[in-house]
Amino acid sequence: MIERYALSPIKDIWTQEEQYRRWLEVELAVVQAKEDLGLILKGITETMRHKARIDVPHILEIEQEVDHDMIAFIKSATRDFGDEERYFHKGLTSSDIVDTALSLGMVRSAKWIIKELKKLIENVKEKAIEHRYTLTMGRTHGVHAEPTSFGLKLLTYVYELERNAKRLDHAFVNISHAKLSGAVGNYANIDPIIEERALRLLELTPCKISTQIVPRDIHCEFLNALALLGTGIERLATEIRHLQRTEVAEAQEPFKKGQRGSSAMPHKKNPILCERLCGMARILRGNAIVSYENVTLWHERDISHSSAERMILPDSIQIIYYMVVKSQALVKGLIVNSQKMRENFQASHNLVFSQNVLNKLIDAGMKREEAYTTIQSLALECYRQERDFRLALKETPAVAALLKEAEIDRLFETDLYLKNVDYIFKKFENDRP
Amino acid sequence: MIERYALSPIKDIWTQEEQYRRWLEVELAVVQAKEDLGLILKGITETMRHKARIDVPHILEIEQEVDHDMIAFIKSATRDFGDEERYFHKGLTSSDIVDTALSLGMVRSAKWIIKELKKLIENVKEKAIEHRYTLTMGRTHGVHAEPTSFGLKLLTYVYELERNAKRLDHAFVNISHAKLSGAVGNYANIDPIIEERALRLLELTPCKISTQIVPRDIHCEFLNALALLGTGIERLATEIRHLQRTEVAEAQEPFKKGQRGSSAMPHKKNPILCERLCGMARILRGNAIVSYENVTLWHERDISHSSAERMILPDSIQIIYYMVVKSQALVKGLIVNSQKMRENFQASHNLVFSQNVLNKLIDAGMKREEAYTTIQSLALECYRQERDFRLALKETPAVAALLKEAEIDRLFETDLYLKNVDYIFKKFENDRP
Amino acid sequence: MIERYALSPIKDIWTQEEQYRRWLEVELAVVQAKEDLGLILKGITETMRHKARIDVPHILEIEQEVDHDMIAFIKSATRDFGDEERYFHKGLTSSDIVDTALSLGMVRSAKWIIKELKKLIENVKEKAIEHRYTLTMGRTHGVHAEPTSFGLKLLTYVYELERNAKRLDHAFVNISHAKLSGAVGNYANIDPIIEERALRLLELTPCKISTQIVPRDIHCEFLNALALLGTGIERLATEIRHLQRTEVAEAQEPFKKGQRGSSAMPHKKNPILCERLCGMARILRGNAIVSYENVTLWHERDISHSSAERMILPDSIQIIYYMVVKSQALVKGLIVNSQKMRENFQASHNLVFSQNVLNKLIDAGMKREEAYTTIQSLALECYRQERDFRLALKETPAVAALLKEAEIDRLFETDLYLKNVDYIFKKFENDRP
Amino acid sequence: MIERYALSPIKDIWTQEEQYRRWLEVELAVVQAKEDLGLILKGITETMRHKARIDVPHILEIEQEVDHDMIAFIKSATRDFGDEERYFHKGLTSSDIVDTALSLGMVRSAKWIIKELKKLIENVKEKAIEHRYTLTMGRTHGVHAEPTSFGLKLLTYVYELERNAKRLDHAFVNISHAKLSGAVGNYANIDPIIEERALRLLELTPCKISTQIVPRDIHCEFLNALALLGTGIERLATEIRHLQRTEVAEAQEPFKKGQRGSSAMPHKKNPILCERLCGMARILRGNAIVSYENVTLWHERDISHSSAERMILPDSIQIIYYMVVKSQALVKGLIVNSQKMRENFQASHNLVFSQNVLNKLIDAGMKREEAYTTIQSLALECYRQERDFRLALKETPAVAALLKEAEIDRLFETDLYLKNVDYIFKKFENDRP
Repeated sequence: MIERYALSPIKDIWTQEEQYRRWLEVELAVVQAKEDLGLILKGITETMRHKARIDVPHILEIEQEVDHDMIAFIKSATRDFGDEERYFHKGLTSSDIVDTALSLGMVRSAKWIIKELKKLIENVKEKAIEHRYTLTMGRTHGVHAEPTSFGLKLLTYVYELERNAKRLDHAFVNISHAKLSGAVGNYANIDPIIEERALRLLELTPCKISTQIVPRDIHCEFLNALALLGTGIERLATEIRHLQRTEVAEAQEPFKKGQRGSSAMPHKKNPILCERLCGMARILRGNAIVSYENVTLWHERDISHSSAERMILPDSIQIIYYMVVKSQALVKGLIVNSQKMRENFQASHNLVFSQNVLNKLIDAGMKREEAYTTIQSLALECYRQERDFRLALKETPAVAALLKEAEIDRLFETDLYLKNVDYIFKKFENDRP
Repeated sequence: MIERYALSPIKDIWTQEEQYRRWLEVELAVVQAKEDLGLILKGITETMRHKARIDVPHILEIEQEVDHDMIAFIKSATRDFGDEERYFHKGLTSSDIVDTALSLGMVRSAKWIIKELKKLIENVKEKAIEHRYTLTMGRTHGVHAEPTSFGLKLLTYVYELERNAKRLDHAFVNISHAKLSGAVGNYANIDPIIEERALRLLELTPCKISTQIVPRDIHCEFLNALALLGTGIERLATEIRHLQRTEVAEAQEPFKKGQRGSSAMPHKKNPILCERLCGMARILRGNAIVSYENVTLWHERDISHSSAERMILPDSIQIIYYMVVKSQALVKGLIVNSQKMRENFQASHNLVFSQNVLNKLIDAGMKREEAYTTIQSLALECYRQERDFRLALKETPAVAALLKEAEIDRLFETDLYLKNVDYIFKKFENDRP
Repeated sequence: MIERYALSPIKDIWTQEEQYRRWLEVELAVVQAKEDLGLILKGITETMRHKARIDVPHILEIEQEVDHDMIAFIKSATRDFGDEERYFHKGLTSSDIVDTALSLGMVRSAKWIIKELKKLIENVKEKAIEHRYTLTMGRTHGVHAEPTSFGLKLLTYVYELERNAKRLDHAFVNISHAKLSGAVGNYANIDPIIEERALRLLELTPCKISTQIVPRDIHCEFLNALALLGTGIERLATEIRHLQRTEVAEAQEPFKKGQRGSSAMPHKKNPILCERLCGMARILRGNAIVSYENVTLWHERDISHSSAERMILPDSIQIIYYMVVKSQALVKGLIVNSQKMRENFQASHNLVFSQNVLNKLIDAGMKREEAYTTIQSLALECYRQERDFRLALKETPAVAALLKEAEIDRLFETDLYLKNVDYIFKKFENDRP
Repeated sequence: MIERYALSPIKDIWTQEEQYRRWLEVELAVVQAKEDLGLILKGITETMRHKARIDVPHILEIEQEVDHDMIAFIKSATRDFGDEERYFHKGLTSSDIVDTALSLGMVRSAKWIIKELKKLIENVKEKAIEHRYTLTMGRTHGVHAEPTSFGLKLLTYVYELERNAKRLDHAFVNISHAKLSGAVGNYANIDPIIEERALRLLELTPCKISTQIVPRDIHCEFLNALALLGTGIERLATEIRHLQRTEVAEAQEPFKKGQRGSSAMPHKKNPILCERLCGMARILRGNAIVSYENVTLWHERDISHSSAERMILPDSIQIIYYMVVKSQALVKGLIVNSQKMRENFQASHNLVFSQNVLNKLIDAGMKREEAYTTIQSLALECYRQERDFRLALKETPAVAALLKEAEIDRLFETDLYLKNVDYIFKKFENDRP
């Protein structure tokens, strides 16, 4: 992970030193469990805790020689141990430690992510409520469709983020699983009650069954949940990028005092945070793919997932954390130009009301097909000639024959588009992210 | 989807005709809802149901002209309609129909997939129970590690399939959502109570909010759930492919009477079904990626997801169905050679017991480090000289000084590796896939 | 491949019948080669050619029984053969036929794709030349940057398409390779001179070495070349989608007479072809990923690539063909509104000239840092107050102290942005796509 | 990039400091070009070179304030400048510098990668030549097929690596392109002759046309070339992993003196390097996907590619370098057990000669169909009964009626499988990687 995008407290979880600390934590939990169960003398864990050392350069030095990181870690961590050394890592296989510690790291990270995600959901919801009745153009295919509320637009992100929060919750349950079941998962040299007690100390759950390792579909689900959350943020960021276009100018990401948009063009304000978030979402997706390939390991495990996970797990976790945290400020500081929203809406010659007219003409007795072609040709003509659609309608005999002027005018009122806003907002009122 | 891998009843859900039938089903549910709510006269729905026609070539012909599939469908389906035509598709936007019908198609497919998946889980579990005590070599890195039970090996697949079933359940809840909320999702021309009633008739749930369409993270989650399930099946298929290697020969996929393995080499029996399943899992993953890119649409929707979904959704659904169904027969008919499992195990000079010896020597007072290097050098020598590790141990003074012959012999008994089999199996007893 | 996007002549290459025809073509080329080399009697090939039958239902029926498509094909194709049957498929392994025929299919498809791609490049170039001096706003981050020529904008697509054409040429050389080297690629039962002669008859090149099959990195390169070409077309389609936004309205994809934009909103003209192309590009990328996973087969081959390739190869080939062909009409019929381009440019208060002013102030002696902050604050103020930047400059004492009014006016002339247009166009003059 | 897999000299190219140094290098090349062209006074470049400072913490500090890395760099690098400051970055846009410097970084890295790749190709070729006549089992579907030479097996990797080297060469030409064409690529504030001269000083080629940036399909092609090379190495690593399986035991990756295979099981020797390489290939593929999404930027550029590229480019480059360099030692030190290869071959009851028998029986007048079923049933019976296929043939009346004992014996000689080895090797003799 590059420094630029690494934020505390997540980045501190994934330093090499902290990873070794988690290894030690797991080793000691096992010893503690044995102590609790009366399998070894009381006090051994405490002794170990005092004597154990985490000395990263020393570990790496030994690894150079033995080419095995766990063996290097054990040798280094226990170098001040006395006879208690025999109880350290006893009956365990490397993966018992590595994978359980990995679950710890993921769980602790996920808690932060979930916590910040809830804040983000609140931020978007607050902004949505603020703009509950802000009229804005709804666009499909990039083209004006029908007016809507800017608050509703934002509420779609609340809804999506809530779904992503649930996916993360689901993944969380799975990544809280770990294993202390030995070399091929059959507890040949460790009793299941030790696993159960030690993992409980770590607030983790034993896998119902494992191979040498925790099954990798669990990590894959987690990375997919992060990627889908990141993609949801990308959707939000893309919306803002669209709204910040010079021609649209309806919203703008916060621009810091002193910030510069371009080294060459001093007039520019660019949605660079939003663009950055979009790029990051791509990485999350790329890493999710990698994690799929990590699932199909050979027999009771091969270690091909390891080199990939050393990179993709800490990276994806740190990237999503960055994205969620930065999105909070983005949403809170979002500059909304409701005046411009109204202007853009008015610039399209009232054409966006065409569906109302269509429905009204059908109600008034015109055949759907005839009504459609009548309106379509009129609308396209208005567009070409920059002519007001309402006026044009009134001057069209086939329409005037069926609808009075007042009826036509009624079709061009915007309250129609906001009339169900409260209904929709109410659905979100009792949500608890 | 190519004919070769398309199985009924799923393939019948995804014919073009059936898709148009679902469109009609949704249109009629809306009319029915209005009727139920007293908004239109009783009996209109029934009249429509009788007069409506699904004539695929006719629809396609009209589409050539109007370049819009929904408009072509409406024109064709209602061509025999009388005045009731005015109530058809009224207040709806194309996507109300298309997306709701898509949810129907997904939901109906998912039910079949889930049903067959439960059978598959049962199949694997039965095979696992059958081989509960079948001793087999546990392998890590492709190299003999420690013995285990073949039943346990299979149970890891039960566990993974169960997780994938849960993911599918989770995705199912989301794909059961649909929308009838109009052009930009604000119910401008349709009342929410119509949506609610119509969707209830279709056994679907309204989205709390939508844009013009159902949010695409829902489809992405579904395709990812299928891809992860497919990847789980790939893991199983890969295991069997490994076990069917000539040198290993511990298991074999069923070989039909009359089947031929190779056009050139009449002696061959190849795990072609397993290989086919592996290839299919790749497609599922590729399609999942595509679905990620479909999430970030512009504003209230752009239609870029559509061309992709026309292919990936029916394809992934049909592929996973094929995979699940074919895996059932694969597992049920799996030929297990437990005799060969034992032989392979014995061929490695008793080296696989080295961890037992390591732990015992530590218990007997040797330092971990000394014990490790003693055993490692002895083990590698035995491997090189094809010499029995148990005998070698007895002849090693440093070992003999600490352990009696009987104690050494005890370390080479295999019951150690099966002693917790029942404990693990018990965890699965009360499962209800 | 779904019918909707399948175009002749490519779709005819990938029918099941045509694939079997290619198998026969390869089989007969081998027999012909043996005949040419005097290894078998003259006339046998001709006899076979007359008696051979391609009867798809019959082949599939036999395959049901033998579970091997090549054996089924041989049985069916040769059912009318007499004694010459012994020379058919002699010394060959299935993959000799299947893979060589696959190369034939790819090569023939690639020729069509390349041919149509050249036309597309010409189409874009012509449009670029037409708009060589059409002034348009250059945008970065979606925000007005500096003016440029619309022809230059289009020329970037010519350049990218040319690169993609070269990649396709490079891939073409590789997919023109095939193999007739037997079960594990060592020519145990076939002489290399037969391979050489037979492949020459088919206008293919022998692999320098093969396993049982043609190496799969070749197919992967091809699918990546298609995906990158598709992505290039997506970039073009995305540009048009942006330009067709209601607020921008600078360009529009062709809208057929009789076409309808929306079932609910008769006024709409949507860039649906461009959106469709974007969705298709995603599929191409998804398939490229799949092809990566097909490279790493086991030993002399496993068949896991086969189920995937049956889908991704014909699909990607047909999709890219559709994309290229449809893009031709898109570009040729592209509606360009140069009037609107000029209006959009003028709407930004002359701010886009800020770089010129920056450089001029530096030339006139102001420090870069001071010049930058002076202009930035003035520009942002103009933007806020919708005030003309040129006028504001003249009224700024620090600027007026250094620059005369005429000098300032000179900075706001647009010919600056077009002065190197000819220089750039000249670079493309001698290109021959 | 994590320290663990970062090797010099590549990692030194991608430090933050070195990246800023390249920015400076590009800035100075532009000034030098202007000097050479007589546009500014002689000596300015030299003055700048002496006064310019690269002080990373200082740059980052300024960036905190201005939120723009290029502006921060300019401010910091030029802080000791006098009046010459006005000529620094003059007429340039940030991307002129950033993208040109990125090309420099890629080109310099690619040179190292290509150089080491050539060595690797030589290493594999040498090993192939060493084992030119080493008889080994050819396997398809993981099942014994027909014997072949281990040298041939290795030669397929030479062939694939050569193709990957060519792809890298092709990508190299493209990444050698850069641009100094200003904010939207139209040379509004810089003359093309300056670009040409400055890039020549840097040994780079000007893009024929650019937007604000170098087109991203170029970077995508490069990352795909790296991914395909990595996938080729994965294929090699996977082969070795298969061969190192306990039951196969035909080859083994080098095992360092002092190395430990498992913390629990002292007897183990695992192919961990090969597994690591497989995991790394996944990352390269994941990053290639990301780079596809970076191609379609908006208009004259958006910056969404940037956050992603800051990670994927240095990561992929460093990973492939690690893979290539480590593969050299892997291949050179590969332990090949030709004795075991022969044993494995003999263990399959001579069944692997079945194709020879099939062809011979056809030659002797039996119908293909009859010959096939005769041999297949005999072969499967031999397999079941662990009976020698040669003996069984002699005792089969239908066979004995057509073939003499000596003729049968001739079919079981292995020289048949090696007879074309020299032919194939000769094709590689004149290669020059």
